[in-house]
Amino acid sequence: VRAYDLIFEKREGGELSDASLRELVAAYTAGELPDYQMAAFLMAVFFRGMEGRELATFTDAMLHSGEVVDLSAVSGRKVDKHSTGGVGDKVSLCLAPIVAACGVPVPMVSGRGLGHTGGTLDKLEAIPGFRVDLGIDRYREIVAEHGLCLIGQTETLAPADRRLYALRDVTATVESIPLIASSILSKKLAEGIDALVLDVKVGRGAFMKTRARAEALATTMVELGTRMGKEVVALLTAMDEPLGRTVGNALETLEAIEILRGAGPSDLQEITFALAAQMLVLGRVAGDLEEGEKRARAAAADGSGLERFRRMVEAQGGDPRCVDDPTVLPQAAHKIPVPAPRAGAVREIDALSVGTSAMKIGAGRATKESVIDPAVGVVLQKKTGDRVEAGETLAVVHANDTTLGEVCAKAVGDAFELGDESPPDPVRVLARITAEDG
Amino acid sequence: VRAYDLIFEKREGGELSDASLRELVAAYTAGELPDYQMAAFLMAVFFRGMEGRELATFTDAMLHSGEVVDLSAVSGRKVDKHSTGGVGDKVSLCLAPIVAACGVPVPMVSGRGLGHTGGTLDKLEAIPGFRVDLGIDRYREIVAEHGLCLIGQTETLAPADRRLYALRDVTATVESIPLIASSILSKKLAEGIDALVLDVKVGRGAFMKTRARAEALATTMVELGTRMGKEVVALLTAMDEPLGRTVGNALETLEAIEILRGAGPSDLQEITFALAAQMLVLGRVAGDLEEGEKRARAAAADGSGLERFRRMVEAQGGDPRCVDDPTVLPQAAHKIPVPAPRAGAVREIDALSVGTSAMKIGAGRATKESVIDPAVGVVLQKKTGDRVEAGETLAVVHANDTTLGEVCAKAVGDAFELGDESPPDPVRVLARITAEDG
Repeated sequence: VRAYDLIFEKREGGELSDASLRELVAAYTAGELPDYQMAAFLMAVFFRGMEGRELATFTDAMLHSGEVVDLSAVSGRKVDKHSTGGVGDKVSLCLAPIVAACGVPVPMVSGRGLGHTGGTLDKLEAIPGFRVDLGIDRYREIVAEHGLCLIGQTETLAPADRRLYALRDVTATVESIPLIASSILSKKLAEGIDALVLDVKVGRGAFMKTRARAEALATTMVELGTRMGKEVVALLTAMDEPLGRTVGNALETLEAIEILRGAGPSDLQEITFALAAQMLVLGRVAGDLEEGEKRARAAAADGSGLERFRRMVEAQGGDPRCVDDPTVLPQAAHKIPVPAPRAGAVREIDALSVGTSAMKIGAGRATKESVIDPAVGVVLQKKTGDRVEAGETLAVVHANDTTLGEVCAKAVGDAFELGDESPPDPVRVLARITAEDG
Repeated sequence: VRAYDLIFEKREGGELSDASLRELVAAYTAGELPDYQMAAFLMAVFFRGMEGRELATFTDAMLHSGEVVDLSAVSGRKVDKHSTGGVGDKVSLCLAPIVAACGVPVPMVSGRGLGHTGGTLDKLEAIPGFRVDLGIDRYREIVAEHGLCLIGQTETLAPADRRLYALRDVTATVESIPLIASSILSKKLAEGIDALVLDVKVGRGAFMKTRARAEALATTMVELGTRMGKEVVALLTAMDEPLGRTVGNALETLEAIEILRGAGPSDLQEITFALAAQMLVLGRVAGDLEEGEKRARAAAADGSGLERFRRMVEAQGGDPRCVDDPTVLPQAAHKIPVPAPRAGAVREIDALSVGTSAMKIGAGRATKESVIDPAVGVVLQKKTGDRVEAGETLAVVHANDTTLGEVCAKAVGDAFELGDESPPDPVRVLARITAEDG
């Protein structure tokens, strides 16, 4: 590759040819293109962007840098969901079993948490014995047999993305819409899916802080997926307060199980069933979103979703008793209540602040090397719109270190904004973006 | 260094603190900052620029990454000249001896040619035995004794610039005004000078193709030099046709000697004496530019400049007979005339095309690894404004390979634009930029 020429061309705002983009990705994956040239290219992309055809080719080259799982032996349309990440976002854990129970296979390759946001793999690993490193053959078998499997990215899936992501992470080139879109789609399409629902979070606890940025990302990903021959739909959902009542790995897994029992907090229910409806329509088992949502709610109410979860946990080496007995999951030694400093209405709960505070007691990772404590976290007794008395418990911090726990409790208290007036009812699903919107 | 934060800050258009910039340069020079982070930073600077204070600190950190030569033992104000490079630009070879002969010491660290432009070191090395790798101690001695010394960049002078330049060269981050300015000034100030004249070339044979870009670079460098406590003046000079009549190393050295004999082409004389006048004023041996130019022309006419050149050649190990006997320099085996295809006036001679053609027969380097043939090159018999008859010789290609030579002759012929009307008299010194213009 004349890498210099490609960096120069992108720097000047040009559009690279398909052949050039494929050579660039291939050379980088093969270790023939040095990191410093790719870093310069990525920064040029940050400033200049990529147009649709370029982005599709770049993403396709990343996708085909490794194995693309063949799930043709699994009958039905395979549909997955990707979330851009938030605080308390345990949706995958309850969504996948519900959708699978409704007859749509869900092959799901997930990630780990970093910073204030959690990761699905970390939450699943709170279940004793649960394995996320099964290898592609076993993954394929479990999807075929149980209709779902949740694993981590392997060495063989989109290796170009793994190298590129690691480089972006240290060169301040993460926050680029085409680079985000290509990273997500190359990984997700390597799973062997036919369609994908994107949950693009918006708000102060999200990666995309503004509605405009979130819409731009959603539109780019929907268009990209469509160009790559997959049906992709995006929901923009609110991430201003934490989703549900729990933040922290074992606590979130238990809350997902609540949803699978037909219970759980209303905001988590709303987001889960909205996403499930999209997946069931994309999976062609529901004719429209209304029917999809009805079927999804039924799978939570009748226990069929919970049964799928149990089978998946067992197939992936986890202790299936966690479904019935919460004490199977690790529990923190100390529970520190956070009292309301005054009476009033909860106007806001700063998700970023709660996520960061939970991270600091071990629920998340400050750096990729941090070790997670699955037991710790925060349980919100009150959510936005609730009324409280002075001294009433707003939240409970679950900690294994009382000093850190007290600091966390203070910060969680500060994350609550109390006022006299109740806020307007929150809108949780802000928009739906499909290929027809393009 | 939290390199990530600094890349991020620059990417977002922020201004970095002095401490941050110094840490960045120090860590990179020490090999503690990986190339990929610096590459991302440089590309961010390409898009975001640096404001004056940032640029001065960054340049000062590069300057002090190595040795700053102490020439305080040499009496008088030490003045150097830097050219941004062009085709046929042999000015340093005649300018430095003239200025030295007028009493202003010229300590000059020069570079090599790349692409269509030549380099002073390559031209000097056409002289048998001439050494440009003398080491700083010997350089200091020669400047003290003879008033001038022309060497190449050493390991110890501005090592940060050496590393940064090599990285910019492969990451398409060369064409950034703050990065160009910091590279030039950090090297030049390491020589031990008190003042500097910049020859910023403008035109199709120059690095800066437009007057606006050349003015921006000149203004940035004058302002930067002033902030760093040095007197800096820039001339913008035309580089549309090659400067003088020769392109190629031995041929250009001989042409510089012609100037030192009070002869040589008028355009080369004009540029040489204009730059000399600036240097003599900065060196405080002339009260104004008019007096400076008069003294410089006298040093060419009376042979004192040539005598300085002879002493410098001898001190640097070269054969001083080259001054009187052109056959001491290598000569090409074949001389291929380029005939005029029609009668008329020379309207233009494309410097870029002539430079590239000469490079291809060995006068320059296609890549840094290319080996130069000092004997080969092009002699222009006609210059812009000259009238020719059909079949009259426009130029002569000096080649050691007849096949390559014929290709070069064809290209040089094509570089001449002939027309009916004579073009207007060319303006060669386009502007003078000083600190007062800022």
